[in-house]
Amino acid sequence: MITYNPKDWWKLIFAFHRSDSFRVLLPGMIGLALYTALIAYIENDYLHVTFKNTTMVHSLVGFVLSMMLIFRTNTAYDRWWEGRKLWGSFVNNSRNLALKLQAFLPAEAREERAMFRDLIGNFIYAAKEHLRQGVKTEKLVETGSYTADWYAKGGHVPNQVLKGLYTEINRLYMNQTITGDHLIVINAELQSFADNLGACERIKRTPIPYAYSLFLKKIIFIYVFTMPIGFVLDYKYWAVPVVTFVFYAFAAIEVIAEEIEDPFGLEANDLPLDAITDTIRGNVRDILEG
Amino acid sequence: MITYNPKDWWKLIFAFHRSDSFRVLLPGMIGLALYTALIAYIENDYLHVTFKNTTMVHSLVGFVLSMMLIFRTNTAYDRWWEGRKLWGSFVNNSRNLALKLQAFLPAEAREERAMFRDLIGNFIYAAKEHLRQGVKTEKLVETGSYTADWYAKGGHVPNQVLKGLYTEINRLYMNQTITGDHLIVINAELQSFADNLGACERIKRTPIPYAYSLFLKKIIFIYVFTMPIGFVLDYKYWAVPVVTFVFYAFAAIEVIAEEIEDPFGLEANDLPLDAITDTIRGNVRDILEG
Amino acid sequence: MITYNPKDWWKLIFAFHRSDSFRVLLPGMIGLALYTALIAYIENDYLHVTFKNTTMVHSLVGFVLSMMLIFRTNTAYDRWWEGRKLWGSFVNNSRNLALKLQAFLPAEAREERAMFRDLIGNFIYAAKEHLRQGVKTEKLVETGSYTADWYAKGGHVPNQVLKGLYTEINRLYMNQTITGDHLIVINAELQSFADNLGACERIKRTPIPYAYSLFLKKIIFIYVFTMPIGFVLDYKYWAVPVVTFVFYAFAAIEVIAEEIEDPFGLEANDLPLDAITDTIRGNVRDILEG
Amino acid sequence: MITYNPKDWWKLIFAFHRSDSFRVLLPGMIGLALYTALIAYIENDYLHVTFKNTTMVHSLVGFVLSMMLIFRTNTAYDRWWEGRKLWGSFVNNSRNLALKLQAFLPAEAREERAMFRDLIGNFIYAAKEHLRQGVKTEKLVETGSYTADWYAKGGHVPNQVLKGLYTEINRLYMNQTITGDHLIVINAELQSFADNLGACERIKRTPIPYAYSLFLKKIIFIYVFTMPIGFVLDYKYWAVPVVTFVFYAFAAIEVIAEEIEDPFGLEANDLPLDAITDTIRGNVRDILEG
Amino acid sequence: MITYNPKDWWKLIFAFHRSDSFRVLLPGMIGLALYTALIAYIENDYLHVTFKNTTMVHSLVGFVLSMMLIFRTNTAYDRWWEGRKLWGSFVNNSRNLALKLQAFLPAEAREERAMFRDLIGNFIYAAKEHLRQGVKTEKLVETGSYTADWYAKGGHVPNQVLKGLYTEINRLYMNQTITGDHLIVINAELQSFADNLGACERIKRTPIPYAYSLFLKKIIFIYVFTMPIGFVLDYKYWAVPVVTFVFYAFAAIEVIAEEIEDPFGLEANDLPLDAITDTIRGNVRDILEG
Repeated sequence: MITYNPKDWWKLIFAFHRSDSFRVLLPGMIGLALYTALIAYIENDYLHVTFKNTTMVHSLVGFVLSMMLIFRTNTAYDRWWEGRKLWGSFVNNSRNLALKLQAFLPAEAREERAMFRDLIGNFIYAAKEHLRQGVKTEKLVETGSYTADWYAKGGHVPNQVLKGLYTEINRLYMNQTITGDHLIVINAELQSFADNLGACERIKRTPIPYAYSLFLKKIIFIYVFTMPIGFVLDYKYWAVPVVTFVFYAFAAIEVIAEEIEDPFGLEANDLPLDAITDTIRGNVRDILEG
Repeated sequence: MITYNPKDWWKLIFAFHRSDSFRVLLPGMIGLALYTALIAYIENDYLHVTFKNTTMVHSLVGFVLSMMLIFRTNTAYDRWWEGRKLWGSFVNNSRNLALKLQAFLPAEAREERAMFRDLIGNFIYAAKEHLRQGVKTEKLVETGSYTADWYAKGGHVPNQVLKGLYTEINRLYMNQTITGDHLIVINAELQSFADNLGACERIKRTPIPYAYSLFLKKIIFIYVFTMPIGFVLDYKYWAVPVVTFVFYAFAAIEVIAEEIEDPFGLEANDLPLDAITDTIRGNVRDILEG
Repeated sequence: MITYNPKDWWKLIFAFHRSDSFRVLLPGMIGLALYTALIAYIENDYLHVTFKNTTMVHSLVGFVLSMMLIFRTNTAYDRWWEGRKLWGSFVNNSRNLALKLQAFLPAEAREERAMFRDLIGNFIYAAKEHLRQGVKTEKLVETGSYTADWYAKGGHVPNQVLKGLYTEINRLYMNQTITGDHLIVINAELQSFADNLGACERIKRTPIPYAYSLFLKKIIFIYVFTMPIGFVLDYKYWAVPVVTFVFYAFAAIEVIAEEIEDPFGLEANDLPLDAITDTIRGNVRDILEG
Repeated sequence: MITYNPKDWWKLIFAFHRSDSFRVLLPGMIGLALYTALIAYIENDYLHVTFKNTTMVHSLVGFVLSMMLIFRTNTAYDRWWEGRKLWGSFVNNSRNLALKLQAFLPAEAREERAMFRDLIGNFIYAAKEHLRQGVKTEKLVETGSYTADWYAKGGHVPNQVLKGLYTEINRLYMNQTITGDHLIVINAELQSFADNLGACERIKRTPIPYAYSLFLKKIIFIYVFTMPIGFVLDYKYWAVPVVTFVFYAFAAIEVIAEEIEDPFGLEANDLPLDAITDTIRGNVRDILEG
Repeated sequence: MITYNPKDWWKLIFAFHRSDSFRVLLPGMIGLALYTALIAYIENDYLHVTFKNTTMVHSLVGFVLSMMLIFRTNTAYDRWWEGRKLWGSFVNNSRNLALKLQAFLPAEAREERAMFRDLIGNFIYAAKEHLRQGVKTEKLVETGSYTADWYAKGGHVPNQVLKGLYTEINRLYMNQTITGDHLIVINAELQSFADNLGACERIKRTPIPYAYSLFLKKIIFIYVFTMPIGFVLDYKYWAVPVVTFVFYAFAAIEVIAEEIEDPFGLEANDLPLDAITDTIRGNVRDILEG
């Protein structure tokens, strides 16, 4: 994620960032400009055609296309924002779990505190990597009987770490270090860990239905490539910037939606999972060692 | 569900997939093109009529029609996405239930672990088939006293499997293998199983109100079939592609909405329930045997 | 509720169902057509007026009117869909309650099972009738000490049945047939019964604020009755179908919204409460006797 | 709140209710009509100006203005509807609390039942008055040691009543009239009482951000007062009803939003809190004495 | 936050508040007016160009731009309103926690009551400052063993205070001043404290994706600076107020969204956190000492 000041208009207007949709679309815009210029030359200077232009149709279809693009934007943004909420929830759950363990464990249980600190950190780290290219278990902290080999056992690393957490909590309960009331109170966080992870996997694996993706790209394509046919009659070579601008306005919305739809990657607009993971580890360490 | 790369524009623009709305609407589009050509011939070459065209009215009604189509799209997509969330929740609940049982059951309770592994898998499989053509109980795994006959008893197979799960959990509680605190903690998942299944049934059985379906199809029909009357005066035979394009833009939105409204089927845009079911079974096996 | 195939376009386009908004609006459409024809005759053939037509104003106001109608549609649909969710929740709660009682009650408690089966069924039936014309308590199943007279005692029949359910559950708890853990687990469903019923009453008793209803009807009225004044100058007698079509498009949205806003009645687009009630009773019987 | 039949079109079209936005805006509409007539006279009959009219600009800005008004309507309606839900939740919580107490208290505890009946009723009454002009504690029912003086102690009357409720529940728990399981089950309703009250206070005290209120009123003002300048050239004196109608359409949406934004008052479109309070008291009395 | 009467139209129309978007945009509006006048002079009086104006294109793009601005407004407002809800939830949780402690603690536990009163107040104060410029721990109330130094220990002050609260609650539970049932009931509020704080941090740290901010500012810029080129041909020097007005309408929406997007600051439209903090402290003091 890029940190920026949303109030600095001039800087943003002339920004030309690597992942700016303006830059992504530049080749398409240049191609379209050449195509429009060609049509303008053929119709006006070569064929000298004269027929009523189609602006009314482009107006009509432009309307329904805009609305579908907004629908697209809403669905993509919802995933991005839900992803952000889920990772915010990871922050909260980790803190709450650490706070509860800190309060409920007897003062002398230093070892258990350290183990939980490591397991929580490992779970978050594994969740993050699992949503990206897969977890390298040798990067997880080894603690107690939980070794890199053990973590790699189940195939699904975050689940495996969670299994460790559940087992340790239940052990404390069975040997009466914590009470049944404590168990009930702690359960909320463990359950939420699994729920949040599952929700992240859902977002990652489910793009917008194929039919909408097809539909939008087809409509934008037909719309933009038929536009010069009528426009060059009225606007002559001025149609070149005009058509290019309209293309940019429509296509950029689709392009941004594609990028933020899967918010767990490493692209410029994706969520800052590395920073969040570090925050969580720091918080948990502060709380459980403090 | 089709796996695709949303960023591959050219491939999607020229895709002509079996369930692409473009292909579904092709017969209608060809028919409409012929009809428009006929009107163009009659009005321009035969009757030589001249009257003010109706583009303004089509503009006005086109607006309210577009908005209703977006409303339609939103309601259909909400069901699709809610359906996806419910199956994501099945994933989470299965994992949590398995994790809890793994932690709470004494290490030597291998048989119980195996039975729960089978019952959870059966429940998910039965839920999936129940939302499609109905469950064939002989495909369920037999485990303990739970046979194909027993599963078929109640009429509603997933409920029957759930009954088995509740009974087994309560048995563990009554013979004090698990404590009351454990029971309370485990209850959340069983309850959620039934809630999710009920929600899926609700989505499946409740299409958008009949009145909206009637209204939208009537308006699209009147809209598209009156369009050529005015358009052919201005655009001559160019009205043929113009009207066809407008029809595609409007009707495709309705057609896609119809398909994704019931997301549990086997159509191209439906949810990948088979894959999710396999994931769940794999996860539960990993956790309970690991 | 009407069961229909949303993909059967031709049938829906030419359907002329009792509750189709097209039929409901027919008298209004005929009246408006005559009015428009009259205006056309007066302005064109009698007064021979010529002034700039008002299509631009109708375009402008048509836009804000469309948006308010979509707002109206969204609020009405939300109530309909929330109503559907609430009754889906009744299904889930009934199932869960039955499953829990089946598992928690000792095998020999046949009488208690039968009583709960009857009380749950009675509650759902009473809730349904309460949302319609009021409950006839003689139609409720008498069970144990719960007679038609007893049900009629409190004035609010579903509450009275719920009181019976709470009393019975607490009796089981006090005589230790079920444990405190069981009580906590069962409480969720009883609580949800009352919450859902209250939410249904809220939907039933609270139409959209009076001011919006006034506003929309006034604007549609002024809009449609001023439309012919300008239109007949351009379109002559063609204004008759044009104005009628625009009226249909706008008024139908309002008319459908009025109908689905209170989804618990017996109109064609209302929810299938009778069928849902039967499903619930069947499910509960299957589970508690199986 | 006004009870009305949303299907009675004629009555609503010609209604001229005290709080109808049409009536509220009448002075403004008359003023604007005079202003438009004046402009028409000056431009057409006095200055004889001729310049291109600005309808295109009003079309463009009219669009974004309409969308902001719908945004405004959505936020206002959301508060109104959330307010309604909160009071629906008060109904549900009161019922559930009464039902639970009725079931959990021993049959002979008549005095306790009466006290809870009074305290619940007092809480709801105090919540309602607190959201209006402030609570007159002498109107609360005195019960046990809870006198008008005691209620007035804390400054925030509903909190004070809630304190009484919590204290009484805990007393029952400490002297073992109810068990710990009962306490956990009852806690949900008390907690929800405080949450709902807090949410009502939030709605009451937080109108839409000041910046939006300023923006909308400024835009409507500039929009409407510049409109006649161009319109009178085309429409002559017909511009008077036209401009007035456009003003009504826009301003009424803002005026209604202002009214329903704070739904707890005594205006015509506000929520029927008095009726709901009576319903709750009746329900609680039925349940706890029945 | 500014307290204002939303129904006082005249005052709001002519208000010229420090943070009014009209004032913020004034320099830009003046610059744009000069630029437009220059274009008008060059095109009309110097070059005497004549070409078809581009209003149609500005109409088309104006539409999709409006919709994106409304999307922007919705996302910004959602954060503002979620922020308000979170602080409303802080109010509710504090009250509930105080009410529960008041009821559950034995009458003689004056010291504990005082300590909880201070700790709750400290947590809310620390949360507020943490969302602004950071907490000065010397401003927190010292109570029991909790000194300014102790508060400053963990780096994240609100977490540290929460740690104190959890520790004290668990101490009461371990020495049996409160029961396990009490612990479960009290846990809800502590957990919610951490969840709400985390959600506030999420809102504060996550502005709308960078790509949207870039896109909107670029489109507004291109839109407004190309507008005069066509407009001055039709409107001559009248284009100056027209273009300025259109710029105001679009840019103000973006500017307001930027301001309310982070609602925890000290700007005019931000939430009244100081007042809410005082309310909470007052409420808690009333309840725990009353």
